[in-house]
Amino acid sequence: MTEKWLVGVDLGGTTTKIAFLSKYGELLHKWEIPTDTSDNGKNIIVDIAKAIDFKLEELDQPKNKLAGIGMGAPGPVDMAKGIIYEAVNLGWDKNTPLKDLLEVETGLHAVIDNDANCAALGEMWKGAGDGAKDLVCVTLGTGVGGGVITNGDVVHGVKGAGGEIGHITVVPRGGFQCNCGKTGCLETVASATGVVRLANEELNSTTTASILREIRDRNDVISAKDIFDAARKNDEVAKNVVDQLAFFLGLSLANLGNVLNPEKIVLGGGVSKAGDILLTSVVEHFERFAFPTVRTSTRLSIAKLGNDAGVIGAAWLVKNKI
Amino acid sequence: MTEKWLVGVDLGGTTTKIAFLSKYGELLHKWEIPTDTSDNGKNIIVDIAKAIDFKLEELDQPKNKLAGIGMGAPGPVDMAKGIIYEAVNLGWDKNTPLKDLLEVETGLHAVIDNDANCAALGEMWKGAGDGAKDLVCVTLGTGVGGGVITNGDVVHGVKGAGGEIGHITVVPRGGFQCNCGKTGCLETVASATGVVRLANEELNSTTTASILREIRDRNDVISAKDIFDAARKNDEVAKNVVDQLAFFLGLSLANLGNVLNPEKIVLGGGVSKAGDILLTSVVEHFERFAFPTVRTSTRLSIAKLGNDAGVIGAAWLVKNKI
Repeated sequence: MTEKWLVGVDLGGTTTKIAFLSKYGELLHKWEIPTDTSDNGKNIIVDIAKAIDFKLEELDQPKNKLAGIGMGAPGPVDMAKGIIYEAVNLGWDKNTPLKDLLEVETGLHAVIDNDANCAALGEMWKGAGDGAKDLVCVTLGTGVGGGVITNGDVVHGVKGAGGEIGHITVVPRGGFQCNCGKTGCLETVASATGVVRLANEELNSTTTASILREIRDRNDVISAKDIFDAARKNDEVAKNVVDQLAFFLGLSLANLGNVLNPEKIVLGGGVSKAGDILLTSVVEHFERFAFPTVRTSTRLSIAKLGNDAGVIGAAWLVKNKI
Repeated sequence: MTEKWLVGVDLGGTTTKIAFLSKYGELLHKWEIPTDTSDNGKNIIVDIAKAIDFKLEELDQPKNKLAGIGMGAPGPVDMAKGIIYEAVNLGWDKNTPLKDLLEVETGLHAVIDNDANCAALGEMWKGAGDGAKDLVCVTLGTGVGGGVITNGDVVHGVKGAGGEIGHITVVPRGGFQCNCGKTGCLETVASATGVVRLANEELNSTTTASILREIRDRNDVISAKDIFDAARKNDEVAKNVVDQLAFFLGLSLANLGNVLNPEKIVLGGGVSKAGDILLTSVVEHFERFAFPTVRTSTRLSIAKLGNDAGVIGAAWLVKNKI
């Protein structure tokens, strides 16, 4: 019996990642295509179907080598109905029937979910989760996203807003304005832009000498990476900013831990590349705010799969549904 | 074919509630027995088995009328292994094999869970949840407990601490001491004792005339009920205290909503008997702190089943496992 492959797709606003995987989650072939958002994104699905067919031809494999296709999409989805409520970056109409479109164009059985949820599933299956069936994945990127897995299943909630960890309110009074319309969201202080905002506030409210002040004077801007690099060099201002970020993140994750007691909480996304200097500080605040049983049983770690988490988690969707 | 009954048991530190239910969750017979915690609680399970047999005899029904027994127990449980990690109020050893003991003594197939989780299941099945498969139940009693249901299943977490909503940190710096060892837990301000603590702080820090001050001068103590009664009479101090409680509860539940987007959040326990004056105020703060999709799709309400939630939820456990 020849072994079938799973197709995992991570649909982004700029590029779309596609991969063929074994049913054990081994990445066999992976590649990217540009995401064509012109004409309200009407070519996106056809482009994916073509890319899969071209790749099969290149590999001299028949279509029935593929067992099904899973996709992570950038917006809230109704998984049961297979629709994406909204995908502002792609130009699609509200409630686009993504699963049906995928099945029609590729001829494959399709399952869709939100991209942050797929990243969480990927980390659960093959990453820092080590197979943990209760796992939370927080993505610290331009924004702060998240995926929550309980009893082995993604928590979508009643309207697909499960996992909106970035919109936990961490500053109940007088916080920064968030894109969601609220103020004081975790995203406003723990995303790449959020930590830069904290650093600018700190620089503006003091005159303390700092590597960050020098960088800002020279370049007009500082980056999240500048902040962690300076903290590693023991820069007081930078260390203070990292501690503020870690306080907000540690508090949020501890409270999430107090409610869900997951086996693992995994930090992913660009900001998480800071690694140990971030993790150590977040763990310190997490332990202060976690219920004793949670403190000793819920573990924090940095994501392992990087950009592959999405396609691996997407493939997991079909592994389970076929 | 004669219809079988389910047995639901809600094991408490003082009394044990027992009920026979139809498989549709109709309460057919319910009664209570004292919980005998003498001799490290060694009679507890035998007493329950006897009570069930006596009741069957009284009703002139054979043992095989019963399809199985579900029990909510006062402590964290490992549901798969059927053990209760700890039940300090009952005098039992750590890791008591409760499911096995129940099966041996009653001769029935048994399933156990934590009592707060059973209350949540009861509300999901027959109470304010109206069958919602994503539901959070918060019990505002002497302490603050909780049960979290996602995708129709209780979230236990890796060490049974799922649902410890009372230990969400709401005052990160300088909060009251909690029994769990932390400070600033929701339980320290939103339980029956917590709201009294808030009221005493308020009375001590001002000289404002208040019904509560009169009651305290007269009786030395005030109760949670006094506070809500006074707030209903437009007492400023009492209204301020209810608003503080509602702020902490609304913030916690909104953040929980932002992560889980449940269909319903149900408030139960003694404090919830305050009804609309509490609910209206909590909803107001909830809406400020909830992500827009959550604000419009997650609904708060007061629990409906009162003391019956536990036995109904316990019966649900067996309905599903037999």
